Amino acid sequence: MTDPIRIAILGASGYTGAELVRLLHGHPNTDVVVLTADRRAGQPLAAVFPHLAHLHLPDLVAIEDVTDWSGVDLVFCALPHATTQAVIEALPERLRVVDLSADFRLEDTAVYAQWYGGPHKAPELQKTAVYGLTELARERVSRARLVANPGCYPTGPQLALMPLIEAGLIDVDDIIIDAKSGVSGAGRAPKEGALHTEVSEGIHAYSVASHRHAPEIEQGLSRAAGRPVLVNFTPHLVPMNRGILCTLYVRPCEGVKAADLLARLGERFAGEPFVKVLPPGTLPHTRHVRGSNLCLIGGVDDRLPGRAILVTVIDNLVKGASGQAIQNMNVMMGLPEAAGLDQAPLFP
Amino acid sequence: MTDPIRIAILGASGYTGAELVRLLHGHPNTDVVVLTADRRAGQPLAAVFPHLAHLHLPDLVAIEDVTDWSGVDLVFCALPHATTQAVIEALPERLRVVDLSADFRLEDTAVYAQWYGGPHKAPELQKTAVYGLTELARERVSRARLVANPGCYPTGPQLALMPLIEAGLIDVDDIIIDAKSGVSGAGRAPKEGALHTEVSEGIHAYSVASHRHAPEIEQGLSRAAGRPVLVNFTPHLVPMNRGILCTLYVRPCEGVKAADLLARLGERFAGEPFVKVLPPGTLPHTRHVRGSNLCLIGGVDDRLPGRAILVTVIDNLVKGASGQAIQNMNVMMGLPEAAGLDQAPLFP
Amino acid sequence: MTDPIRIAILGASGYTGAELVRLLHGHPNTDVVVLTADRRAGQPLAAVFPHLAHLHLPDLVAIEDVTDWSGVDLVFCALPHATTQAVIEALPERLRVVDLSADFRLEDTAVYAQWYGGPHKAPELQKTAVYGLTELARERVSRARLVANPGCYPTGPQLALMPLIEAGLIDVDDIIIDAKSGVSGAGRAPKEGALHTEVSEGIHAYSVASHRHAPEIEQGLSRAAGRPVLVNFTPHLVPMNRGILCTLYVRPCEGVKAADLLARLGERFAGEPFVKVLPPGTLPHTRHVRGSNLCLIGGVDDRLPGRAILVTVIDNLVKGASGQAIQNMNVMMGLPEAAGLDQAPLFP
Amino acid sequence: MTDPIRIAILGASGYTGAELVRLLHGHPNTDVVVLTADRRAGQPLAAVFPHLAHLHLPDLVAIEDVTDWSGVDLVFCALPHATTQAVIEALPERLRVVDLSADFRLEDTAVYAQWYGGPHKAPELQKTAVYGLTELARERVSRARLVANPGCYPTGPQLALMPLIEAGLIDVDDIIIDAKSGVSGAGRAPKEGALHTEVSEGIHAYSVASHRHAPEIEQGLSRAAGRPVLVNFTPHLVPMNRGILCTLYVRPCEGVKAADLLARLGERFAGEPFVKVLPPGTLPHTRHVRGSNLCLIGGVDDRLPGRAILVTVIDNLVKGASGQAIQNMNVMMGLPEAAGLDQAPLFP
Repeated sequence: MTDPIRIAILGASGYTGAELVRLLHGHPNTDVVVLTADRRAGQPLAAVFPHLAHLHLPDLVAIEDVTDWSGVDLVFCALPHATTQAVIEALPERLRVVDLSADFRLEDTAVYAQWYGGPHKAPELQKTAVYGLTELARERVSRARLVANPGCYPTGPQLALMPLIEAGLIDVDDIIIDAKSGVSGAGRAPKEGALHTEVSEGIHAYSVASHRHAPEIEQGLSRAAGRPVLVNFTPHLVPMNRGILCTLYVRPCEGVKAADLLARLGERFAGEPFVKVLPPGTLPHTRHVRGSNLCLIGGVDDRLPGRAILVTVIDNLVKGASGQAIQNMNVMMGLPEAAGLDQAPLFP
Repeated sequence: MTDPIRIAILGASGYTGAELVRLLHGHPNTDVVVLTADRRAGQPLAAVFPHLAHLHLPDLVAIEDVTDWSGVDLVFCALPHATTQAVIEALPERLRVVDLSADFRLEDTAVYAQWYGGPHKAPELQKTAVYGLTELARERVSRARLVANPGCYPTGPQLALMPLIEAGLIDVDDIIIDAKSGVSGAGRAPKEGALHTEVSEGIHAYSVASHRHAPEIEQGLSRAAGRPVLVNFTPHLVPMNRGILCTLYVRPCEGVKAADLLARLGERFAGEPFVKVLPPGTLPHTRHVRGSNLCLIGGVDDRLPGRAILVTVIDNLVKGASGQAIQNMNVMMGLPEAAGLDQAPLFP
Repeated sequence: MTDPIRIAILGASGYTGAELVRLLHGHPNTDVVVLTADRRAGQPLAAVFPHLAHLHLPDLVAIEDVTDWSGVDLVFCALPHATTQAVIEALPERLRVVDLSADFRLEDTAVYAQWYGGPHKAPELQKTAVYGLTELARERVSRARLVANPGCYPTGPQLALMPLIEAGLIDVDDIIIDAKSGVSGAGRAPKEGALHTEVSEGIHAYSVASHRHAPEIEQGLSRAAGRPVLVNFTPHLVPMNRGILCTLYVRPCEGVKAADLLARLGERFAGEPFVKVLPPGTLPHTRHVRGSNLCLIGGVDDRLPGRAILVTVIDNLVKGASGQAIQNMNVMMGLPEAAGLDQAPLFP
Repeated sequence: MTDPIRIAILGASGYTGAELVRLLHGHPNTDVVVLTADRRAGQPLAAVFPHLAHLHLPDLVAIEDVTDWSGVDLVFCALPHATTQAVIEALPERLRVVDLSADFRLEDTAVYAQWYGGPHKAPELQKTAVYGLTELARERVSRARLVANPGCYPTGPQLALMPLIEAGLIDVDDIIIDAKSGVSGAGRAPKEGALHTEVSEGIHAYSVASHRHAPEIEQGLSRAAGRPVLVNFTPHLVPMNRGILCTLYVRPCEGVKAADLLARLGERFAGEPFVKVLPPGTLPHTRHVRGSNLCLIGGVDDRLPGRAILVTVIDNLVKGASGQAIQNMNVMMGLPEAAGLDQAPLFP
């Protein structure tokens, strides 16, 4: 047996940090050696996340107090957007990095500047980053030093749509993505809009036509199409903690039915451990993937002639964040891709 | 002051029956004199709905035991689908009726037979029924003996889309209705799919391209268009009790923007007590209408050129059922239309 | 018809402020003329609470900008604890005041200082304040200039226990109050512990043996007993927005059964519009009072010899805050006590 | 490596059956070879539990169609109460059995008959059954052929109270157990009281002083005390799916404080992988154990002189059912006790 991969998690006091810890606890080849959380430095992780109290973990430290990185092989960066570019630039070149923030997801730094409110602070590093939608970028991920882990919303729609666009099976100019997310995507920092009183017993759309994940989705679909693609992307907040369901309204090409789209996806993802294509007419629930790294895709013909409906579901904290990050780590480090990610979903 | 309207509620042991009782409790011109619930006959309503224990109400009786209707002016029929046609046909002609079931909503009995699994049992009565989307049928409702109260899902989309179609502002052949409903729409009869364990902490689409409310919506839109219209209608079950939000993806005509659509709706519903059009860019939450008879409509331009997004919200048990039924009663009986319906929403 | 009571609500941007507005909307004898919210001054209330957008209300102002109080008859003060003493002291003596904060609830300013972390800032005013548990202080409330509205937790247990203590029916030295509250009691200010992610799908006890409502309960029970009483008070946070259920474990005196306790309470509260005593063996749900000013009390004999269990439920924002405040206003102003408070509960 | 234990799960279409499958999926030494569900015989488990669709499992069969048990080593019986006695009696003597129903939990068949509404159907088998509260019965479990897995409610209180009673640290005649449970304990069979509409946004007590888990708790405490013990046991239904929190009100002996109780429990459970005693003043949430086999115990001194409060939490489907069943299997079969049970809790 080889030595375990030594892991540092930067930003361990957020939900994606905690989820990395949870999943790595079940990983046979890793050892978490550094946990940072600037405002909680000096405390045990249990003070921040009591549900993890019974694991054996190092105490939280401030990033700036990690002066010796020689005992670390790979860094998961789970810091807020816009703070990450400088942090990663300061890391030793030797370290492999999986970044869960949005800071390196958009290849075009001009697009980044437009959507994230300021110039990119590490444009040279950006050129080396690989967008880590694992199933569609496995080979590039395996060679990457820096992987930009996809956003939670973009993961499902890109997995479902990119193969169909590449195969020329759908109209790329009429794609509607009606997305529904649980509230953990908003993170743990207190804000009025994420209070139980404001979220439960209701639903609403937000950031319509202006959400930062739209250009990220378009980046993937444009690459698949070989030309610029715009999409509708309409997110809704659902009173649940975990899960994203995306209802995709598409126009298949003449004569193509939902079953054909699913057949194509079934071929594309044959043998994949985490992407599962359901039989025509069977549509997934977010409950079917809670706590797991699965992405399920179903579909059905629309009543409107010439239209079809696809539905994707993921757990936003797993395949939409920490699980896919570990999947990328596995690919980067030559480990079995499903290592640490083989848990069955938790239901109810 | 005139004598109160004497009310019978048939099917008082379901959620819409209870909601009628709740709202009529605050109505200044009505008196509930008969409550039926066959399986609970002989019991007080409090045995079925303890939250209504402190109102003064008649005990539950079986419908067949109501032999003298002379003390009743108006009947609310809140019985299951398909059982209602025979019941209403047996009522004295003198009684005004508001039917909350689907039994008289579809004017074309052939369409009814196709979607509800059997022939219509009262086709002559159907010809006299008025579809009671109050704001768009007020005058006909005022003269009706039998009002078919609209379904919960069809209420919001028809209110938002029919005036736009009548004004020729949107393409009628490309309408997508992504609907999200709370679980009270499924009623109180126990079923696995409505258990807390199966509904909470998740979301899913159901009855996609096959829901019975699709032909009901199409009936309204077709009338507005003057020709047959088909729509996409994709319902989702949300872990909340009350509320329906519909996200409507439409194609405005050349040069028409979301603000123009909202302006048209604002004119159409000017002065309406229950339909409110929000300023462009402001989108409603279902929380903003909980417990009230309001329907809120908001809108925004899409990122996709030539597209716009409208959002409607209602409380499915109020404007989507019992509140609209009382609104219809008020119109039928010449009472102020908002009588009994002026409560502010309950939040949080 | 007399002139309406002109109302000012100080602190209208919190949940109890919004609830006052909701309930006063249905009150036939009041007119809301001033709404303050310092940080939202200049905005319409709709910007803070869109569910109230369709009422006709004055815009929000800062308290310090209200220089002329001549158009106001009564002030509801819904400000944070500890900020209220100075505000009320500065109000014209002429104004009647109902204070929803804790600032004037504890008659002994030494006890206040011990539990609220600092000296009382208006000890002379404190002497004039009447603790407004309406049913047990109606006559004093009617004459009060300043009413201290009871806390949410203390309302139910005091209503159930004080009459039993006065009648000498239970042991005052062995009272256990296991309390379960919805999260709206925590207010609208963002805090980690009130996030949907932290509250839903779980339960926990908090502030055990150290909650500020313990001395408030003890103040009432001590008065009833004629000597100092200590109680166990153990609050739990439940994943719901509204409602408090208290399970009271008591020792009836020799030979006294739960039915006797309920009979005594039934006599004490006979004719009360808001306090309802259930038959022995029937226990209330918080759902039975949601949105209403009701307090329900049920009870049953314990399996442990010599013990009984009582259960009280209220809606913490209504009978536990804004509803009781309006009830107190009605008593103070000589209005019918149930005016504006006659809504049936909202279920489901 | 030895051969895997071959497992049959009887009653695989309920929540505890699904939870066994989920947990055994991560167990290195087992192989699920038989799944029964009479009404779903012939279907894949995925038709009943889509979240388990991606595991490799045998199809569901009817129990009566399992005629050859030679390929099975151990049976988990997850059938409804009262149906289990006959089923287990019919199994080959060779098979080890863990029964998750209540059918063999009460050693005294007269007590069983009193609480479960009819005579015990396998009284001889009852004499051989071992009550499987693993930490307190490990040695007997290891030798048992038939283990009666504890009920969900009794697990936490017995773990916390039995060692204190054995040590003579608390008064056994004044124990109050205020219990709060999620709704998955009610199972998957549709019933009105478990609907989302009836459970969410509210809390209530049920089966007060009459719940079947009271005699089960008393059986354990009586054994610890060496004489009959009665307890108060008051269950409440909380709007969450998983988790039980029990608030235990006890009277420590003269001079004994909460810290002493916790110290005793800390000694008793030192080295246990699943029972964790928290520092004095730290109280656990059910969220801290969701999806895991942990039982956490915290405590604090009461304000009432001579009283203390203990709080226990478990996941009712894991330590309260399927997890403890697997823990018992591990002990019975000589496997590492934590095999398959080492997952970190899922939060949020």
